[in-house]
Amino acid sequence: MSWNISGITVQEGDLVQLVGVSFKSYIFKLETGKELHTHRGVVKHSDLIGLAWGTQVFSHMGSSFFLLQPSLPDLIKNTPRATQILYPKDIAQILMTMGIGPGQTVLEAGTGSGGLTTALAFAVGSEGKVISYEYREEHQLKAIKNLERIGLSDRVEFKLKDIGQGFDETGVDALFLDVANSFDYMAQVRQALKPGGYFGSILPTTNQVTNLLVALRQYEFAFIDVFEISQRYYKPEPSRFRPTDRMIAHTGFLIFARPITIDREHADRKLLREAGAITVVEEEELKVLEREQAQQQDMETGKIE
Amino acid sequence: MSWNISGITVQEGDLVQLVGVSFKSYIFKLETGKELHTHRGVVKHSDLIGLAWGTQVFSHMGSSFFLLQPSLPDLIKNTPRATQILYPKDIAQILMTMGIGPGQTVLEAGTGSGGLTTALAFAVGSEGKVISYEYREEHQLKAIKNLERIGLSDRVEFKLKDIGQGFDETGVDALFLDVANSFDYMAQVRQALKPGGYFGSILPTTNQVTNLLVALRQYEFAFIDVFEISQRYYKPEPSRFRPTDRMIAHTGFLIFARPITIDREHADRKLLREAGAITVVEEEELKVLEREQAQQQDMETGKIE
Amino acid sequence: MSWNISGITVQEGDLVQLVGVSFKSYIFKLETGKELHTHRGVVKHSDLIGLAWGTQVFSHMGSSFFLLQPSLPDLIKNTPRATQILYPKDIAQILMTMGIGPGQTVLEAGTGSGGLTTALAFAVGSEGKVISYEYREEHQLKAIKNLERIGLSDRVEFKLKDIGQGFDETGVDALFLDVANSFDYMAQVRQALKPGGYFGSILPTTNQVTNLLVALRQYEFAFIDVFEISQRYYKPEPSRFRPTDRMIAHTGFLIFARPITIDREHADRKLLREAGAITVVEEEELKVLEREQAQQQDMETGKIE
Amino acid sequence: MSWNISGITVQEGDLVQLVGVSFKSYIFKLETGKELHTHRGVVKHSDLIGLAWGTQVFSHMGSSFFLLQPSLPDLIKNTPRATQILYPKDIAQILMTMGIGPGQTVLEAGTGSGGLTTALAFAVGSEGKVISYEYREEHQLKAIKNLERIGLSDRVEFKLKDIGQGFDETGVDALFLDVANSFDYMAQVRQALKPGGYFGSILPTTNQVTNLLVALRQYEFAFIDVFEISQRYYKPEPSRFRPTDRMIAHTGFLIFARPITIDREHADRKLLREAGAITVVEEEELKVLEREQAQQQDMETGKIE
Repeated sequence: MSWNISGITVQEGDLVQLVGVSFKSYIFKLETGKELHTHRGVVKHSDLIGLAWGTQVFSHMGSSFFLLQPSLPDLIKNTPRATQILYPKDIAQILMTMGIGPGQTVLEAGTGSGGLTTALAFAVGSEGKVISYEYREEHQLKAIKNLERIGLSDRVEFKLKDIGQGFDETGVDALFLDVANSFDYMAQVRQALKPGGYFGSILPTTNQVTNLLVALRQYEFAFIDVFEISQRYYKPEPSRFRPTDRMIAHTGFLIFARPITIDREHADRKLLREAGAITVVEEEELKVLEREQAQQQDMETGKIE
Repeated sequence: MSWNISGITVQEGDLVQLVGVSFKSYIFKLETGKELHTHRGVVKHSDLIGLAWGTQVFSHMGSSFFLLQPSLPDLIKNTPRATQILYPKDIAQILMTMGIGPGQTVLEAGTGSGGLTTALAFAVGSEGKVISYEYREEHQLKAIKNLERIGLSDRVEFKLKDIGQGFDETGVDALFLDVANSFDYMAQVRQALKPGGYFGSILPTTNQVTNLLVALRQYEFAFIDVFEISQRYYKPEPSRFRPTDRMIAHTGFLIFARPITIDREHADRKLLREAGAITVVEEEELKVLEREQAQQQDMETGKIE
Repeated sequence: MSWNISGITVQEGDLVQLVGVSFKSYIFKLETGKELHTHRGVVKHSDLIGLAWGTQVFSHMGSSFFLLQPSLPDLIKNTPRATQILYPKDIAQILMTMGIGPGQTVLEAGTGSGGLTTALAFAVGSEGKVISYEYREEHQLKAIKNLERIGLSDRVEFKLKDIGQGFDETGVDALFLDVANSFDYMAQVRQALKPGGYFGSILPTTNQVTNLLVALRQYEFAFIDVFEISQRYYKPEPSRFRPTDRMIAHTGFLIFARPITIDREHADRKLLREAGAITVVEEEELKVLEREQAQQQDMETGKIE
Repeated sequence: MSWNISGITVQEGDLVQLVGVSFKSYIFKLETGKELHTHRGVVKHSDLIGLAWGTQVFSHMGSSFFLLQPSLPDLIKNTPRATQILYPKDIAQILMTMGIGPGQTVLEAGTGSGGLTTALAFAVGSEGKVISYEYREEHQLKAIKNLERIGLSDRVEFKLKDIGQGFDETGVDALFLDVANSFDYMAQVRQALKPGGYFGSILPTTNQVTNLLVALRQYEFAFIDVFEISQRYYKPEPSRFRPTDRMIAHTGFLIFARPITIDREHADRKLLREAGAITVVEEEELKVLEREQAQQQDMETGKIE
């Protein structure tokens, strides 16, 4: 049974989160006969079955914990990881912008530790499918284990393959690249992704982003959006309400674009420009051209002599 | 048929977006026999059927448009509205933080123009359910129409009711309030939402947030998170990469919390404090208390005389 | 001799900064005969005299340091402190917004550790004057010592006094309050500050700010500005240019206002509203009033019957 | 007489600001005999003399205005301009970071419309000096006029010259470049600026910044800081306190650095790295080198065989 947020009481097989002091949090699958060993004592899985969510439980040493269903951000942040993982704040926008929902098929590379894979698998539901590429076997194995723990691995097809060799699929609706040189794979992306589909990537440096922007233009992507998401937390004190002192200042730039089929002969140049299919530099050349054409026309119509 | 992102070519009944110059965008359902009338000419629906997504189409006047599947943010922003609607950047975090996904049941009030309702209905899938409360009939009717247009209305149960009278449901997994005085309904929320469930709200002013923080404490909510989401766009020009000149500085503060059942007798006070079930002021009183108890103990054990 | 940024080579009496590995920084006044003792060896003051700024010097153990004139932000951050001090990013805006410059007289309370005092004293120059109030003697003594070290103490008049008793001065041009309950001293500020002068304050919580906004209105301040300043650093790597991972998310809200003399009888209400001398609530009452007056007028002129 | 914030009542020759409805603001020098003509009537200069600052005045048509001393940000934003001008929020940090104060000499290029020049001239006082380069005569003339209006032109030496030819000065303490290709002038800057002096620049795009970072390394600048300043305004309503809806998202990246004299032979590499005199790439090469040297040493000392 996969992770979900339903149910009033704890059942065998549920994914459970215990939150103790010092924000120590334990996420595990409930299995009769097993025990959770913490620095503050032992909690028997079987003692939790039948309890209501949101109550407090106690270890054999009397330490108290809150009994919760883990949230999706908790699961993502809790992913045992070998690689840098995406932040929930960024994953949230990826799902939203690319329209990832029940029943869909989504391509992803690289799998990494499976943080994004978890969110994608959750969002597409039991009818959907995530196809996740990774070329480093040890990462893939780790990610498979992470997805199995949450009960979402059957929605994911893990592929051990270098995407430089191309994707096996064509005509896919959405494809996300979480690789440092995503700009090197635009030919492969263009082949796998249907025209009008959703392409996304996340990159930490501006140098990588500008490389990707060049590649996107070369491969006729348009409707390019680049943005950063900031999450600014506040201290939840009603009588002293204020932002926290420090925050995550940067994780990465999110880049989204859609492959289009450009009809350069008939297309309105203004439309191509606005869609981002023409760069500023091309635009300036076009302006010169337009000015010359306008002059030419004026001369022909006698406005200039 | 509801909105989705699948398919290579345009089909009867699909939700279609045409993007023309000056970012003029038209979202409509494809129905043979109908025509789209724009300032730049007419496009017959039937002419679009069978075309590949991502291509360009032309009006009878020769104006060009890109033929796209609308994205979820496009749909939300495009919601015909009578009320202020939530931004996709905020909705994305609501879905993520509250774990909204396939098969779930979610409560929402007020319906407003149905922007959030659209996203919730999309995310819970055909197996899930959104129950949406609104007390102003004209808004509800508008929202129903908006959801019908996108083909998601059958996933939503619209209720015309003042939530001050309470919700009809109990034991629900997730409940979101998009009302200006959400702090007035904590008793009702507490009744409807299961312990450990997900509560969320969005409020524009700090005064409203501090009111809500007080109410959350009164009704034994914990794990309170308050944050703002900022989306900073960049101009997608590889040779002149820079943020845009202006941005949305504020939409609202997002507040999330979970109702818990507090065992004040046995609970570790430190845990209650960290969970946010005790305010800073109570905490300071507790510190005084702890100091006194420690002194008392020291006196008893003879450390102080 | 006070701190300044002039000079090519190091002179006796100069304020000197040595920057060693691990960003270890030493700021001291150069006095022949003295020695700087560091974990990485001893540097004789006399060995530095005559050296060019910007060069490297070595301790007797061979450890290297850069020899620099400390910057104003370095001095402020380096202030030995008993209290929270203002950040250079905020002080910079205070100087700018309040027009603090050569030859001026500025009032400040409380002195605290003297971080802001340092910047004010620097900015007003040898012809200007800073009058700084503090009621806690140990803080005042510390601040005096800090200012003496930098050679700016003779521009500051330190007063040991509770500002609740009022300021001794009247008709001052600019007055800054760095106290937690600045809203309690608006009567005193109004007495000391000339009409049209510059008032400023910094407060960490929104509750304090709203209190101050109420008090400002009561005492006829207008042209109220409230803002936060964020400083987002980037890693200075040309091939991997990106923001730093973390940042200071919040120091305080800066509030600026100017006392005015309101002629309520003749004044344009719209002007009073825009100047912030009327609150939104009053504004709404005024709108009702205006509507009624308009109706009255329409009735009189026969437009409504 | 130059602009300042002193004085209780309005004097002949003062710089005056009248603020009327719709935030219409008029800044002018008070000269007996002159009149200010506005859409809302005429105000005679002589009628203002002797009035207290902060009061209201009325045009011959009865329109009311607040009578204020213009603030430095008001003056800067009010600069009649032919070019893009710097924002007060950025100028504030430039003054702070570069330690610009009374009595100093500062170099600047290009003059542009004189917005930064105004702030520099104000900050250095009557004993200080600003040397401002510009190669476009029409801009220089405009800037001179702007500075004359405020009474600060005698503190500025305007030079009509292409800085590609070099600066006339050497050993200057601080130098700011507000030119789009500041990275092209590092040789010239290095010649004019004393070792250890303050260099600053502002650039709108990341591409320009990375170019400058490369150039700074080539010319042995260190202690490089790159940051952005954001100013987020709040609506000053105590009962509805919240940020404004929109904000300036970007003006430019501020870059500061100090030319140093590097002793590569004796210097601690770690120190050079931290000072930013070595890039990440060089750093990685160094790490390889260090590892090899350590192994070599281990082999020599018999730790590895």
